[in-house]
Amino acid sequence: MENKKDCVTLDHGSGGLAARELVQEVFLSRLNNSRLAPLEDSAVLPVANGRLAFTTDSYVVDPLFFPGGDIGALAVNGTVNDLAMRGAVPLALSLGLIIEEGLPLEVLERVVDSIAAAAETAGVDVVTGDTKVVHRGAADKLFINTSGIGSIVEGVEISPGQVRPGDGIILSGTMADHGITVLAEREDLGFGGQLRSDTFALNHVVAALVEHFPGGIHALRDPTRGGVATTLCEIAVVSGSSMEIWEERVPLNRPVAVACEILGIDPFFLANEGKCLLFVDPAVEGEILKALHRHPGGKQASLIGRVTDGEAGRVVLHTAVAGQRLMTPLTGDPLPRIC
Amino acid sequence: MENKKDCVTLDHGSGGLAARELVQEVFLSRLNNSRLAPLEDSAVLPVANGRLAFTTDSYVVDPLFFPGGDIGALAVNGTVNDLAMRGAVPLALSLGLIIEEGLPLEVLERVVDSIAAAAETAGVDVVTGDTKVVHRGAADKLFINTSGIGSIVEGVEISPGQVRPGDGIILSGTMADHGITVLAEREDLGFGGQLRSDTFALNHVVAALVEHFPGGIHALRDPTRGGVATTLCEIAVVSGSSMEIWEERVPLNRPVAVACEILGIDPFFLANEGKCLLFVDPAVEGEILKALHRHPGGKQASLIGRVTDGEAGRVVLHTAVAGQRLMTPLTGDPLPRIC
Repeated sequence: MENKKDCVTLDHGSGGLAARELVQEVFLSRLNNSRLAPLEDSAVLPVANGRLAFTTDSYVVDPLFFPGGDIGALAVNGTVNDLAMRGAVPLALSLGLIIEEGLPLEVLERVVDSIAAAAETAGVDVVTGDTKVVHRGAADKLFINTSGIGSIVEGVEISPGQVRPGDGIILSGTMADHGITVLAEREDLGFGGQLRSDTFALNHVVAALVEHFPGGIHALRDPTRGGVATTLCEIAVVSGSSMEIWEERVPLNRPVAVACEILGIDPFFLANEGKCLLFVDPAVEGEILKALHRHPGGKQASLIGRVTDGEAGRVVLHTAVAGQRLMTPLTGDPLPRIC
Repeated sequence: MENKKDCVTLDHGSGGLAARELVQEVFLSRLNNSRLAPLEDSAVLPVANGRLAFTTDSYVVDPLFFPGGDIGALAVNGTVNDLAMRGAVPLALSLGLIIEEGLPLEVLERVVDSIAAAAETAGVDVVTGDTKVVHRGAADKLFINTSGIGSIVEGVEISPGQVRPGDGIILSGTMADHGITVLAEREDLGFGGQLRSDTFALNHVVAALVEHFPGGIHALRDPTRGGVATTLCEIAVVSGSSMEIWEERVPLNRPVAVACEILGIDPFFLANEGKCLLFVDPAVEGEILKALHRHPGGKQASLIGRVTDGEAGRVVLHTAVAGQRLMTPLTGDPLPRIC
């Protein structure tokens, strides 16, 4: 029987003394910075003239911990990546937690440790937060929302609308690692610890590319829920273009390929949490690829295809066995609560 | 038996086609604006040089609908108010939903209608969003996170740290309406429809006061969870001051007073969702009170007390029966899931 003192209680969500103690002991001790510390209704940040990116994501991944990461790392990296996908430099994150009564404090502390570590790696502070506690059974352990704001450097215009025929399509690394890892962990499939989530903050690699190749990057998108296939189809529709993808060029870790084969799951539909698709000016695609290869966030980057001026929304996959098939977006969900 | 087609399914949280359809049909049709419409990873907003306020809140209120409001209105007004409490003008909101599989679409639509109406009243757009769906039983119907950004006009310094001895303490209207309404609704206490949540966006009344009384408003705080008592105690601690409060001056709707009396609940600890405490320069407190009385957000505003230079953190309540007692912050939670 767990000791009530070592668990989150409804009192911790009360807005009263117990809530304040939780904030001090669990959050401020780990996430302390000058903007969070006053614990006021809003954090206040200086901003310069320009454009701000603003994004939000809730994380409901099950299980909370998995090889290569946990819900905390995911919540920081996922939101940082959504900012980076517009070419924005993250300025600050918010953190909203919904906790099920009875969650061991030790679990919460591990998650907040992970949030702190991921935020430090990404170089961004959590500046404002909120904690709610609901009755046992009214939520499943822990849900996290992170929102983020970032600044976009003048002249940077990165958006699916900028994609044009001829653009090279680069995937920044291997595909499907996160999705297959969470699935295997959840279903206890026992793939012998060879699978590992790819959760990773892409802001540093994106910032380096944006700086070195002004105008060279037309669009960026992280293929999370729905995977590479869904993301490509969406961008083909939005940009009114067609795409050709060569399956043999798409990086895939061997254990991931094996697990997908055994389970009969198409890795093109599985979530990635530390990869991005880049749509780039063909004149600099080789240099961008080289720059990616020198960065920890892009060592296995590969030119996987090209944008063409065919029918809008049409994405053709040239398969490894020299056939071809049309890629379609995911319809339903093969794997809920992946992030 | 509900028809599956009329309910939210796990597919709606997939990131695939079903998710996109939900976003188009339920969200974009109601919240449409030029920044949300592109549905990119982040919304992009122009900002001017200055200071930005950034805040987040999750809403887990049970029941979802109650007299005077619902979780949607609460989620907009609560976050708008957190921005307003720093004197910030709201620029944009984010909207993150966690939905339990099987939630009737009609319920979701009513909530999004309410979000749209509240956002229009507050004069702010929802510019970015996220939807997750979890298995039946893994959440209780619907949880909402809203984060918000706002700009703070140059020279405005509103913060509990600005509170000083002599400041007038104004409450912008009646106390405890939201807390007692949700409690009565949830427990089916049958107070005959006389109770009504006070959920209300305070940004317009705050903006008017900030403009007309530059420097006159030292601090603002909306007494939500923990109520007026907890908020006063917190500000007394942060500002290192003492406070005297006169109970007979604290506005309380008659049905609220009766319900609290019957239930043995202290209204000073009950949540408010459309009220604020103002700590103001005594030289202009009379004028501020008059300005409040002319505004829909402050018709029943009252000068309820004064900041003194006594012991830091000490809040004395002069009761209606001519006694006095020390106010203490809420310790535990008399009423979970109030917002």
